[in-house]
Amino acid sequence: MKKIQGITESETTRKQAEAEELQNYIGETVQMHGFVYKIRKMSDFAFVLLRTKRAVVQCIYSAEYSEFPLELLQEESAVQVTAKVIAEERSRTGYELQMLAVEVVSVPEELSPIVINNKKVDTSIENLLNYRPVTLRNEKERAVFKLQEGICRAIREFLYEERFTEVHTPKIVAEGAEGGANIFRLDYFGEQAYLAQSPQFYKQMMVGVFERVFEIAPVFRAEKHDTARHLNEYTSVDFEMGFIESFEEIMQMETKMLRYVMKFLREKYEQELSLLRVVLPEFTEIPAIRFYEAKELVAKEYHREMKDYEDFEPEEEKLLCELVRKQTGSEFVFVTHYPSKKRPFYAMDSKENPEETLSFDLLFRGLEVTTGGQRIHTYPEQVEKMKARGMKPEAFESYLMMHKYGMPPHGGLGLGLERLTAKLLGFENVRYATLFPRDINRLTP
Amino acid sequence: MKKIQGITESETTRKQAEAEELQNYIGETVQMHGFVYKIRKMSDFAFVLLRTKRAVVQCIYSAEYSEFPLELLQEESAVQVTAKVIAEERSRTGYELQMLAVEVVSVPEELSPIVINNKKVDTSIENLLNYRPVTLRNEKERAVFKLQEGICRAIREFLYEERFTEVHTPKIVAEGAEGGANIFRLDYFGEQAYLAQSPQFYKQMMVGVFERVFEIAPVFRAEKHDTARHLNEYTSVDFEMGFIESFEEIMQMETKMLRYVMKFLREKYEQELSLLRVVLPEFTEIPAIRFYEAKELVAKEYHREMKDYEDFEPEEEKLLCELVRKQTGSEFVFVTHYPSKKRPFYAMDSKENPEETLSFDLLFRGLEVTTGGQRIHTYPEQVEKMKARGMKPEAFESYLMMHKYGMPPHGGLGLGLERLTAKLLGFENVRYATLFPRDINRLTP
Repeated sequence: MKKIQGITESETTRKQAEAEELQNYIGETVQMHGFVYKIRKMSDFAFVLLRTKRAVVQCIYSAEYSEFPLELLQEESAVQVTAKVIAEERSRTGYELQMLAVEVVSVPEELSPIVINNKKVDTSIENLLNYRPVTLRNEKERAVFKLQEGICRAIREFLYEERFTEVHTPKIVAEGAEGGANIFRLDYFGEQAYLAQSPQFYKQMMVGVFERVFEIAPVFRAEKHDTARHLNEYTSVDFEMGFIESFEEIMQMETKMLRYVMKFLREKYEQELSLLRVVLPEFTEIPAIRFYEAKELVAKEYHREMKDYEDFEPEEEKLLCELVRKQTGSEFVFVTHYPSKKRPFYAMDSKENPEETLSFDLLFRGLEVTTGGQRIHTYPEQVEKMKARGMKPEAFESYLMMHKYGMPPHGGLGLGLERLTAKLLGFENVRYATLFPRDINRLTP
Repeated sequence: MKKIQGITESETTRKQAEAEELQNYIGETVQMHGFVYKIRKMSDFAFVLLRTKRAVVQCIYSAEYSEFPLELLQEESAVQVTAKVIAEERSRTGYELQMLAVEVVSVPEELSPIVINNKKVDTSIENLLNYRPVTLRNEKERAVFKLQEGICRAIREFLYEERFTEVHTPKIVAEGAEGGANIFRLDYFGEQAYLAQSPQFYKQMMVGVFERVFEIAPVFRAEKHDTARHLNEYTSVDFEMGFIESFEEIMQMETKMLRYVMKFLREKYEQELSLLRVVLPEFTEIPAIRFYEAKELVAKEYHREMKDYEDFEPEEEKLLCELVRKQTGSEFVFVTHYPSKKRPFYAMDSKENPEETLSFDLLFRGLEVTTGGQRIHTYPEQVEKMKARGMKPEAFESYLMMHKYGMPPHGGLGLGLERLTAKLLGFENVRYATLFPRDINRLTP
């Protein structure tokens, strides 16, 4: 039998240089592979931009040392390059890559109908998304999702340090957690099933097991909204923690987490931040304001009539953020104590005012990015609230098991990864921060 | 406005000691919270086991120093304990925890009908799963999923180091990647949609963007099998890598990854490994055998008649593993070159023998845990193979975009997280390694 040793062939036969390591190879000849991103012909030489895993590297073609015709290269060809790394003070990187030889590994069948190798993909959002498999090859387009990876890495690292356990909960479920009509249905071997709107029930159950848990996974909302901020499938960052003394601890944890994310991105994703000219928010604390106070403040400051007393209009969220920024300098704001009527059946009501919940949203640059709060943890209280809402506790037997057999005070939150990414990068439409968006009109690619 | 500073209240008012830090507090009085897991009354004192985030901690109740009646404590109550940490040479931990005071934070409504605080939850698998929100509170049950976290952490750390980018791809899709009838359908705003059987199309597309990508996410299979190894929803670890020179590089990468996982678990999850008495496989290399050779070997060695020439029977997988272990000592074995007929339309056929694919499965302790291989990367070849299978290339326009506009040779794999966990822990049924399993008969909890 053959033995697989866990050493890749290229490691033993020819070492591939990574773009990030080139400064270590000055004076040497290296092997590199990647896509031909762009060819810029000059009078007696050419710049050949090579797209590698994370960086676009500039190579120089010159008849002086390149032992192949330039015509061999075509944009979006996959190539294996032999190049010499020469010290060059005038270069931003400190070196110059002289292409000696090239092996064309594969060639495209056609040229992309959309130009992807300019600074920006200059097309409509429709085209940008329709041609996602190619438009994502643009240096800036892909950097968005490299940064999104960084956000997830930072969140996980932070939560592991805070002793949260990562879980994987089912997405095909028997009952929706958030209620309402916004739920996708499917036939499950003859039974009616749904796609999870959130991991709510499961993360609460897991508080009884690990005290602190989190999950980063897809959630599904059959909302018919066609707006710049709604997706029908998105990545939700959920955490839930037990033994809290107040729902403020959840906001404390999120504040700490977001600070960690910004620090992590600055340290490990500097090249993407710089390429996309991202201005990360600087903050040590986040202001918190009660829902009714926020409503009144916005109405007063902007001379608006208060219509909906139970929720924010999107415009109000924007104005509130503008106002808070003016008053405190903060681009984040927690809004707390949302009305009970607008919060789910598991939300804990305030003991002082049962029409308010111990809940919050986090708004960032005009958009709600997080919803969280304390949950009911005793069985009688949860059953009573269900009944008051006309729900049948019998239908939630396995959910109520935890309340029945003992739960500590607990709460948590759900953060929309795409919304956070979009707002960090200054996008008006959340689709720009979604790899392959699903909306009311889009099911492909 | 109130300011949220990212420092939890408990940090400022009373510092909570973590079980893992207790040896640093010898001689001191600490605050700890957790669930009362078990009370063992002795003649003139009692052991009170406290279940914390990751460990079960033994406290001692004695009228000598405990300023509350033992009756205050009830199993599965959430409690806040004040205890003194006393050096005690005879204890395994080196200290003893004397309970001074206790605050009962919440009490269960009822006692669980299933005893969860013995060494093992002594009930049927049906009950174990029906009562999952409580049975998972058993020390060993939850350790399974703590270890599963460790597997995912290790995989991610390894893949980041190998310069893979993590992606989030949609689970509601317009076309199934694996074909066949085993696909869940749903209505998507009047259009027919499906639940992704794998992130196959998307991870391939992303090879054109980041060269190396991975995703750990749910996948859905509407298989009607009711066996110990099938789930209808499971967590798939998928990676895909470009610029490969041979499909063996994928097996090399997996071998290296699995070695990393074992090392990581030994270093960071020792307490769970020890509690569950896990014997991790020791290996530096993994043997590889061709599919037909493996079939013949098993037939010859075990005097079995070869029936299915295109696939393994589950029994054959078990026998092959037994045989390989006897011959080489390895508990893993790669089986390569599966027949084209049994592999999907995107699998690359061998140039030497077009009836074989450049593909592999990884078997571990008798079970297939991974399927992988090289994919077709040129447009004409992919279109031709689709047509030969009676498929309509027009229906796969966005998938074929990458082939059309240029792709390097590439391949990857999908690894079933629950199967790997189950086999690592020596479980015969994959459900024991699934937090909330979904099978043909189970949609709750």
